[in-house]
Amino acid sequence: MTQITPDTSASIRRLDPEDAQQALAQVQELLHRHELVENLVHRQEHGDERAVLVEGLLQRQHEAELKELVNDLHPADIAFILESLPNAERQLIWRLVSAEHDADVLLEVDDWVRESLIEAMDRQDLVAATEGMDADELADLAPDLPPDVVAEVQKGLTIEERARLIEAMGYPDDSVGGIMDFEMVRVRDDVSLEVVLRYLRHLPELPDHTDQIFVVDRNDKLLGTLTLSSLLVNEPEIEVRAVMGTDYLSLSPLDSDSDAAGAFERYDLVSAPVVDDLGRLIGRVTISEVVDVIREDSDEQALSRAGMQEEDIFAPVIMALKNRAPWLLLNLCTASIASFVASRFEDTVSTIVMLAFLMSIVAGIGGNSGNQTMTLIIRALAVGRITDKNVWQLVKREMLVTFLVSLVGSTVAAVFAWAISNSISVALVMMAAMICNMLIGAMIGVLVPVVRNRFGKDPAMGSSVLLTFATDSMGFFIFLGLATIFLL
Amino acid sequence: MTQITPDTSASIRRLDPEDAQQALAQVQELLHRHELVENLVHRQEHGDERAVLVEGLLQRQHEAELKELVNDLHPADIAFILESLPNAERQLIWRLVSAEHDADVLLEVDDWVRESLIEAMDRQDLVAATEGMDADELADLAPDLPPDVVAEVQKGLTIEERARLIEAMGYPDDSVGGIMDFEMVRVRDDVSLEVVLRYLRHLPELPDHTDQIFVVDRNDKLLGTLTLSSLLVNEPEIEVRAVMGTDYLSLSPLDSDSDAAGAFERYDLVSAPVVDDLGRLIGRVTISEVVDVIREDSDEQALSRAGMQEEDIFAPVIMALKNRAPWLLLNLCTASIASFVASRFEDTVSTIVMLAFLMSIVAGIGGNSGNQTMTLIIRALAVGRITDKNVWQLVKREMLVTFLVSLVGSTVAAVFAWAISNSISVALVMMAAMICNMLIGAMIGVLVPVVRNRFGKDPAMGSSVLLTFATDSMGFFIFLGLATIFLL
Repeated sequence: MTQITPDTSASIRRLDPEDAQQALAQVQELLHRHELVENLVHRQEHGDERAVLVEGLLQRQHEAELKELVNDLHPADIAFILESLPNAERQLIWRLVSAEHDADVLLEVDDWVRESLIEAMDRQDLVAATEGMDADELADLAPDLPPDVVAEVQKGLTIEERARLIEAMGYPDDSVGGIMDFEMVRVRDDVSLEVVLRYLRHLPELPDHTDQIFVVDRNDKLLGTLTLSSLLVNEPEIEVRAVMGTDYLSLSPLDSDSDAAGAFERYDLVSAPVVDDLGRLIGRVTISEVVDVIREDSDEQALSRAGMQEEDIFAPVIMALKNRAPWLLLNLCTASIASFVASRFEDTVSTIVMLAFLMSIVAGIGGNSGNQTMTLIIRALAVGRITDKNVWQLVKREMLVTFLVSLVGSTVAAVFAWAISNSISVALVMMAAMICNMLIGAMIGVLVPVVRNRFGKDPAMGSSVLLTFATDSMGFFIFLGLATIFLL
Repeated sequence: MTQITPDTSASIRRLDPEDAQQALAQVQELLHRHELVENLVHRQEHGDERAVLVEGLLQRQHEAELKELVNDLHPADIAFILESLPNAERQLIWRLVSAEHDADVLLEVDDWVRESLIEAMDRQDLVAATEGMDADELADLAPDLPPDVVAEVQKGLTIEERARLIEAMGYPDDSVGGIMDFEMVRVRDDVSLEVVLRYLRHLPELPDHTDQIFVVDRNDKLLGTLTLSSLLVNEPEIEVRAVMGTDYLSLSPLDSDSDAAGAFERYDLVSAPVVDDLGRLIGRVTISEVVDVIREDSDEQALSRAGMQEEDIFAPVIMALKNRAPWLLLNLCTASIASFVASRFEDTVSTIVMLAFLMSIVAGIGGNSGNQTMTLIIRALAVGRITDKNVWQLVKREMLVTFLVSLVGSTVAAVFAWAISNSISVALVMMAAMICNMLIGAMIGVLVPVVRNRFGKDPAMGSSVLLTFATDSMGFFIFLGLATIFLL
């Protein structure tokens, strides 16, 4: 990375938080030059041979530069760059990544990119890349791999590893079992720390993110955990059982990964043991998986509120179409129903045309206000802050807050309505309708996510469609209804 | 926590990911009973003395139960419960929390709750709670503490700690300096691992989240890091310099905390050193702070898209009003302008009233479609995936995707328009307007966040207001404009 952080001395390679972005810019620059040359070659296809030769040389030089740049990066940064390029350029770079990085990069890239990378590899390279993987890593990749590659690779596993692979493949993606690994260091409780230290010295290295080792009995039942801190600060003669912790978080493989992430966050953990129903140690979860869960959950929530799933910003257009059309069509249906409701008041609107221009304000602000309430409620639901006991308190509070906001808002709206319609009665009807519609928005904003959550549904996505539908239809209905009664 | 996880044996206290929620439900149940009794007492204020006496006893019993329940929890869980209760109940529970937990709970609770807790404490308790804190913890709390308490507490600090407190208070909240701590273990590079092990054995414990210790020269210049793993697996005779890592992420105190969090995520780190311009070690950042940054950033983004800041769901109504009204008023203004644009076509609408009911569909779908594009772009911006080189590719791609989606959507909409207006020409105008407006939405959805981001502004909040404004106004303008030209 010497090219990127010029302030480093030769012996120290320092990573910088913005490395990945800078490397991406460099890769894009080189690709751009590469493309320019390619266009030149194509343009003079029938030109003289010497020019073609020069271009070919230039091409190879660019590729060599790219290759050096990319292979000098951390595998996570290579993954980032692959994710950030359109498919053709992604494949070009992927071909330049040296085989030693293949496994790490495949494990680091997002799901939607991994598929396209695997497709581009031949069987032999795939086997080479995956045969050194741990059971839990292989389990993550298995759904994307050709079945014959999985069959080939698992032949090379030990019986124990094969059993773990089968176990890991059995747990749902969003469970603790889906994110746990099997790299645990186990010790007995009746040995001295000295013995533990000697045992560790025989290992080539400790598993990543080892902040504690696990104390088990002969049946693998978890008795406690020995933090590296206790191991290091206590005298070597002390027995493990005297310093092991018995006050620890333990997870079950079927716990939800989001709950586990919440616990890591609250208790500031680096790793946690996973035990089965009999209390036997079967795996561990580390903070690096948890951070991914937190990030994915937050991304998913943002996307699902806009009615989408994770999408490659460079995915083929047809996939984007499938991702986005259903939600837009659903919105189109609800908007059409709302507009059908409004069209029942055709006579009213043809008498006072100004109502046509004001009704969308009533509908829109109801939706905006309900959306604020809903955002707060979805957040409070996500951290488990809403219980049966306080849900009515929340409804009452939101209704009160919304009522006060609507008094301010509807006064402003009434002034506007009076200005463009020149009628006090239209202004008063506008004010009343807006207050009612904002209260409806607040009610829906609390109740729909709470009820969806109660039935185990994602509170974000469905709720926003329902909210818009309600505030549009009811906004039109109340406004035009009041107008029909009081203004005609 | 024996009450909560009945499956635990007496000697092992096991935490469970859902502990906090279960404890919250229990606290609420007890508070509910407490309140019932209190109401009874109030209702028979003039009743006989014996009844009052009995109620008083019951009250005390409830408080004792609550006290036992709460003080048996992890400080993070106490913080969670305090955050999840309305203010009066929060204060009741806070009084029951024993003084030994005060410091930890104050550090764990969210900012918006901390203030109300500090207000309820007298000076003496505050000094007692804060005087044992580290410099970085005190710096986090200082803005909320009464100045005389800060003055009192800092008297008890060593000169070194006082210098650190001043340093920590000087960095912005959203910088690496704002989240770093000073609990570093330092060693020299020319000693053997044996010496390091002996040195560590003299410490009472290692700082939380110590996965590496820092190798510095006599001027505190960082030379490398020694992971606990290397320390434990290598032979004690080896010198530190032979096994220390020189390939590590180092942060500057003025780096943004979000960039640092991104780096922790990519490189799967547990801790990272913070160095000044001269390469001297001045602090470290740990994963527990980083997880909080990730969570806060994602919360902030969700809230800012709805035009809000962090809000206590039990905050006084007046604060909620201040939080929500500005954004709703801004939306009201843009909606009014859009409606004013539409009202310029009064003649057209009074001739064909059906247009009034169809125009809100055109505006709404443009907004929904643009919102999908914008959500993807904001996400890609957040991880640094968008550069000058690919922004035009993205615009082109989004326009193409949106065009295809709009062909499908506008056909459905045209059928609906034909059904309620009974006019093929209205249906065709509707179709054309909808396609145009969705393309406008896509363009705004890419360009506005990109431009705001370029100028260092939060891409989420302002963008969504501008998007709605554009798709509403242009939706009305294009639809009614085309209708005026072709249908009159």
